[in-house]
Amino acid sequence: MFDYRPTRTCGSLRKKDIKRQVTLSGWVHRRRDHGGLIFIDLRDRYGLTQVVFDPLQAPETHRQAEKLRNEWVISIKGSVSSREEGMVNSKLNTGEIEVIACELEILSKAKTPPFSISDESIDVNEEVRLKYRYLDIRRGDIAKKLILRHSIMMTTRQFLDHHGFLEITTPILGKSTPEGARDYLVPSRIYPGTFYALPQSPQMFKQLLMISGMDRYFQIAPCFRDEDLRADRQPEFTQIDIEMSFALPEDLMSMIEGLCKSLFNTCKNIEITTPFRALSHKECMERFGTDRPDLRFEMELFDLTSLVRSSSFSVFLDQINQGGIVKAISVKGGADLSRKSIDEYTDFVGRLGIKGLAWMKYQGAGLTSNITKFFSEGLLSQMIELLGMNEGDLIFMIADQPAKTNQALDHLRRKIAKDRHLIDPHRYEFLWVTDFPLFSWNEEEKRLESEHHPFTSPRFEDIHLLEREPLKMRSSGYDIVLNGYEIGGGSQRIHNSDLQQKIFEYLNLSSEELEEKFGFFLDALDYGTPPHLGIALGLDRIAMILGDTENIRDVIAFPKTQKASDLMLEAPSSVPPKQLKELHIRTTS
Amino acid sequence: MFDYRPTRTCGSLRKKDIKRQVTLSGWVHRRRDHGGLIFIDLRDRYGLTQVVFDPLQAPETHRQAEKLRNEWVISIKGSVSSREEGMVNSKLNTGEIEVIACELEILSKAKTPPFSISDESIDVNEEVRLKYRYLDIRRGDIAKKLILRHSIMMTTRQFLDHHGFLEITTPILGKSTPEGARDYLVPSRIYPGTFYALPQSPQMFKQLLMISGMDRYFQIAPCFRDEDLRADRQPEFTQIDIEMSFALPEDLMSMIEGLCKSLFNTCKNIEITTPFRALSHKECMERFGTDRPDLRFEMELFDLTSLVRSSSFSVFLDQINQGGIVKAISVKGGADLSRKSIDEYTDFVGRLGIKGLAWMKYQGAGLTSNITKFFSEGLLSQMIELLGMNEGDLIFMIADQPAKTNQALDHLRRKIAKDRHLIDPHRYEFLWVTDFPLFSWNEEEKRLESEHHPFTSPRFEDIHLLEREPLKMRSSGYDIVLNGYEIGGGSQRIHNSDLQQKIFEYLNLSSEELEEKFGFFLDALDYGTPPHLGIALGLDRIAMILGDTENIRDVIAFPKTQKASDLMLEAPSSVPPKQLKELHIRTTS
Repeated sequence: MFDYRPTRTCGSLRKKDIKRQVTLSGWVHRRRDHGGLIFIDLRDRYGLTQVVFDPLQAPETHRQAEKLRNEWVISIKGSVSSREEGMVNSKLNTGEIEVIACELEILSKAKTPPFSISDESIDVNEEVRLKYRYLDIRRGDIAKKLILRHSIMMTTRQFLDHHGFLEITTPILGKSTPEGARDYLVPSRIYPGTFYALPQSPQMFKQLLMISGMDRYFQIAPCFRDEDLRADRQPEFTQIDIEMSFALPEDLMSMIEGLCKSLFNTCKNIEITTPFRALSHKECMERFGTDRPDLRFEMELFDLTSLVRSSSFSVFLDQINQGGIVKAISVKGGADLSRKSIDEYTDFVGRLGIKGLAWMKYQGAGLTSNITKFFSEGLLSQMIELLGMNEGDLIFMIADQPAKTNQALDHLRRKIAKDRHLIDPHRYEFLWVTDFPLFSWNEEEKRLESEHHPFTSPRFEDIHLLEREPLKMRSSGYDIVLNGYEIGGGSQRIHNSDLQQKIFEYLNLSSEELEEKFGFFLDALDYGTPPHLGIALGLDRIAMILGDTENIRDVIAFPKTQKASDLMLEAPSSVPPKQLKELHIRTTS
Repeated sequence: MFDYRPTRTCGSLRKKDIKRQVTLSGWVHRRRDHGGLIFIDLRDRYGLTQVVFDPLQAPETHRQAEKLRNEWVISIKGSVSSREEGMVNSKLNTGEIEVIACELEILSKAKTPPFSISDESIDVNEEVRLKYRYLDIRRGDIAKKLILRHSIMMTTRQFLDHHGFLEITTPILGKSTPEGARDYLVPSRIYPGTFYALPQSPQMFKQLLMISGMDRYFQIAPCFRDEDLRADRQPEFTQIDIEMSFALPEDLMSMIEGLCKSLFNTCKNIEITTPFRALSHKECMERFGTDRPDLRFEMELFDLTSLVRSSSFSVFLDQINQGGIVKAISVKGGADLSRKSIDEYTDFVGRLGIKGLAWMKYQGAGLTSNITKFFSEGLLSQMIELLGMNEGDLIFMIADQPAKTNQALDHLRRKIAKDRHLIDPHRYEFLWVTDFPLFSWNEEEKRLESEHHPFTSPRFEDIHLLEREPLKMRSSGYDIVLNGYEIGGGSQRIHNSDLQQKIFEYLNLSSEELEEKFGFFLDALDYGTPPHLGIALGLDRIAMILGDTENIRDVIAFPKTQKASDLMLEAPSSVPPKQLKELHIRTTS
């Protein structure tokens, strides 16, 4: 039998290996016939090696090689040789050598693939690529991202293990809870009419582990959400889930900073700076209009509400009178924007429900625009100063209700940054967002609501506000933001059952509701709960950022479409009635 | 605010720390009042530390400490002090010291737990312990096994990463396949009337990854089987799943031996011997009556069929005439077995469907028993010699059809070994079982059947037998057995589509059947499949063996009962009709 086990990979041979006898195995990447000689680029996941079949040196092997086609799997034995003068390929790691084959074994043949494996770029829609995912991986790009994902997981585990965290696997067949997103359900065969649910996160389990005394837990946890998917969501996604006891947010935050440092170091060879910046939720909203600002560029938001009150611009004044605000961004060098571009931005914010986009250009003596006539010279100077404008800059202003204004300016800010190439793709700007409000007011039901979940602790120093000014209480939650993406979030949890009880009272939750919604978990909290806190990081998102892709499917081996189907498996699919009968269910469609 | 962050764990203080100021946080394990002094054993997952509240040194703190009850969570500040003469507790790592508390903070109170956390052993049924799993973990034993499981996972990942294997996560929402055990199904909301299935193993995915060129894959993979559970099964279980390309079984086997060596070294500090023994399936069945023999003790099976033909014992002769066999084991020193014990063993094999258990004792001059009269002197001597008996030994003989005889003697062998304490619990005997038959004959349908699955490769050197003697073909499958438990199994897969096609022809599978059963996977095999092979190891089983427990629930944080319910979560449970409506299903019970 031909021993097909490679002695070297297709990416490893160098000049120093010349004259070495080797066995290489892999796929026929390309084949060229040149006046008697046959050249094969042999490929494995480590690289390409040129293999030469010479009719003079090994006539039988050369005859066999004539049959070879792309993507056949072969094994060859031969000797490493230097390439001829002028044939060196400096783009390949193995470009200085070639292997002169003396033996060839065809291990398996291949049909012509539905798209090219060897071309750098292919023009095929994603559906075909997903159907033949195994071939798309073979092309190399996705393979690289899967290798990256492996490194991310290894590095994360090593880091957390090193810091005394234990990986503890929690159940996937869990219980359906009425809160949160839609659950995936699993009918039980043994208990007719009942269902398991797949976990949206291991939240309750990790808190239970703290109650059980396992003071440092983590898990790279599969999570499930049956939602209509956005571009960057998948029905099954992966969380780096962490919880620790007897610690404070600052401890967790510096540990996570260390983890991020380690990830960027190992996976990207980039030294990131710690500690990360931190902004309160309030400041974030004021300065960026969002709680996950991209800090790779400036262009902050400025509140002009009080300033423009003394203008005579009725559009602004009307909005202010209706409780609205006026905010602006200054676009450096934006005075070069054409009327057409400005109209396009106006349309852009229009799609977000904003009726008008006011603008002024700082040209020559001062600000010019179709609306400057409503503003006094002094007012215009104040605006220039407040926004730190220089000649050639432009400001965009939006007047509307606070939430809409912030949202529109956040989107506009990011769009302009993209359009004007203000974003350095090699920069990584981390940010902690803290001090979220603990409660919000539900106007309809006239009651307080938890902003996050009712187990989120208030900041300890705000607990005294509970009786009189609950809406002023800040939670001890924190989000971690990277380049404008929320890559994780968590909080200190309530560990004191008296405080928990009070919070429930303020939320106006009846004991029946509590029992139904949180059941056994509340019971567990009563048996001696340590102070604890945690975080969940989005592994897929982190892999996307480290892998320089905006397509979540690139970092998942066998992903689903945005409609939650697996085109390769053809899942979901119908099943025989017998199977449903055993599960005591019937389909209604 | 009281800073409850411990400066040391409750298991770490020693004599050299005396006079050190420390903060400790944890649970009140035990509390004793001794003439004014209050003693607390403070517990975290690292150990126990004695804390002393002295009314003279800190009267206010002492008053607070009077309220303390078991399982309250507290934090104390104090100074490390040596214990008084005679009060040293040599059983505790911290037994030479105590901490004199100056400050105390009660972090949370606790209701009286349903069972004791501090008693070494408790008399509570497992249902209560599962309902309050978080308290049972707090008791320590299960915590230790979860820590062990973490080490097993870390060690496995580090070992495989080091050997160039990539961990690649495969989908949990997959497709239902008609083969194998029962699937757990997940109704799709988006595609009415269709279902995902949870994977019974990532088998197809790992083979697809080989086709995609990812030549060394592993995954610590959650797997699901909706079966009526045996004592050592769970509906969700974990597999160390491995696949590699361009290798042969010997490579995989030595790699797995290295992994086992590493696991035993790291987790048990035991040096195991490699390479492991290997036996063919045939030899295993002959010598032990099972394909997963426990090699920690001898007592092999001997075939007496041809020998006893020359006896006049009609019970044996009748069985032989009906195609049966006669096999025996020799129990060292077993001549001391009473008539009653022998009767009990007879009942024992009776429950396995065996009508009689013949026995002879080697006492004085030779073999004695109620049936020796049917055997000539010469025959009895031959038996003594064949079985290597010494005076004081006993043989048990069973005559029945081969499968039943083997099964009964396997059970009997293990039972006697247990009863007579022949098993050294500190011994670890690994074994590879190889050369399983590739096909078996389905007498009913008059056709060949795959013993494993139809993608299992025959041994390459047996391929020539396919045309004429397919039942003589050995598969290239292998099982790994440890102390009588199958801890894993795998095989070389077929990578050549011509051979695959032929195998299918011999199995008499129509192309429609093939399409239905294996669909897209057969298609994938046609696009250039490398030779590949793999294995799946049972992580839970390995954790049980390393954790010295026979209860699989001990090595799973939140396990299910044998009836697949989670007593803590109370899952599965009913769900609101609205949820089912969205999923286009109705319950029929």
